[in-house]
Amino acid sequence: MKLYTYFRSSASFRVRIALNLKGLPCEYAPVHLVRNGGEQLAPAYRAIHPDGLVPALEDDGHLLQQSLAIVEYLNEMHPEPPLLPAAPADRAHARALALQIACDIHPLNNLRVLKYLTGTLGVSDEAKQQWYRHWVTAGFASLEARLAADPRTGKLACGDQPTLADLCLVPQVWNARRFNIALDDYPTICRIYDHAMTLDAFAQAAPENQPDAE
Amino acid sequence: MKLYTYFRSSASFRVRIALNLKGLPCEYAPVHLVRNGGEQLAPAYRAIHPDGLVPALEDDGHLLQQSLAIVEYLNEMHPEPPLLPAAPADRAHARALALQIACDIHPLNNLRVLKYLTGTLGVSDEAKQQWYRHWVTAGFASLEARLAADPRTGKLACGDQPTLADLCLVPQVWNARRFNIALDDYPTICRIYDHAMTLDAFAQAAPENQPDAE
Repeated sequence: MKLYTYFRSSASFRVRIALNLKGLPCEYAPVHLVRNGGEQLAPAYRAIHPDGLVPALEDDGHLLQQSLAIVEYLNEMHPEPPLLPAAPADRAHARALALQIACDIHPLNNLRVLKYLTGTLGVSDEAKQQWYRHWVTAGFASLEARLAADPRTGKLACGDQPTLADLCLVPQVWNARRFNIALDDYPTICRIYDHAMTLDAFAQAAPENQPDAE
Repeated sequence: MKLYTYFRSSASFRVRIALNLKGLPCEYAPVHLVRNGGEQLAPAYRAIHPDGLVPALEDDGHLLQQSLAIVEYLNEMHPEPPLLPAAPADRAHARALALQIACDIHPLNNLRVLKYLTGTLGVSDEAKQQWYRHWVTAGFASLEARLAADPRTGKLACGDQPTLADLCLVPQVWNARRFNIALDDYPTICRIYDHAMTLDAFAQAAPENQPDAE
């Protein structure tokens, strides 16, 4: 297995956690999203992922894209430990939490979107920061309310064992901290993040612990 | 089962197709996203979905959110006909196509995002239209290249049977047509859309055929 990744990419971070939880050895192929005008846009990487996005996973001749599709694939190929609860309604809950981050927060604050705001639309750096804060805090407020109210919330987002929800939540919190977002209003989210980071699979997947970290 | 939906919502459209393909009877509960300042923001609907988003599905005492989580749930509870291929790598392919739409195109062109652009950021209507076109055409160009090149592409996005990929593709194309996006450069996408719309499950889920259509 070979993972094309960038240390700071939230989507790559999700897949790294899954690989660690499953105990799967994987070659680490860094793609630098900033250096050299963006290595992800060079022909060498376009042959792997035509859109120049990370992560991508090579496994057994298959070239897989989209972090959540990759994690579901790893979970189907290597069922232990499971990354989704057993009951369908609980699986839907874990997937909904994950998708709330992957669809409703993360895509709005992607590098390419922030570049469009400041480049094409010519918005100020302050307005760009405000945009980032707006979508993260709207999303986190909703997640916090849901996690605080749901009896399935445990040490982690769905009980005490890591699920797809934690794989999305932890990188999003890491990213929010990097952008200096105040997290005082989200105690449940912070508690889950802090607990997850005591687990080797999460801590070792963190951007600062990657070979391409700066 | 009860589906909270809005006729024009792409995410609701996805779930309606799944319910039709599975042949599941479902009460249709319209939530008007524009009328009365947005019925989705009223306390009655906030009790169902605190974020005021559609769709939401009530089933057997469970309240489910996020269209892709709902579709995976329906597929697990009612396996026939399957909405994902059998082999894990093919399932990952179908999910990746779906997520490419659900994460990389749709969230950027949501009503709430377009409102932020014209309201908070004060961009012109023309710049808003350009934003919409930019993300749809970037996403469609990528999907077109992938679908045209992949031997798994059939009458539909993954072979000849409907999958999660078609459930996302068809509403996105419907939406692009509504916004008068030229689709001449995406013949494979258009061919899949045209074929899907010959199937009752897709056609009957289309916005214009809903009880709340205007």
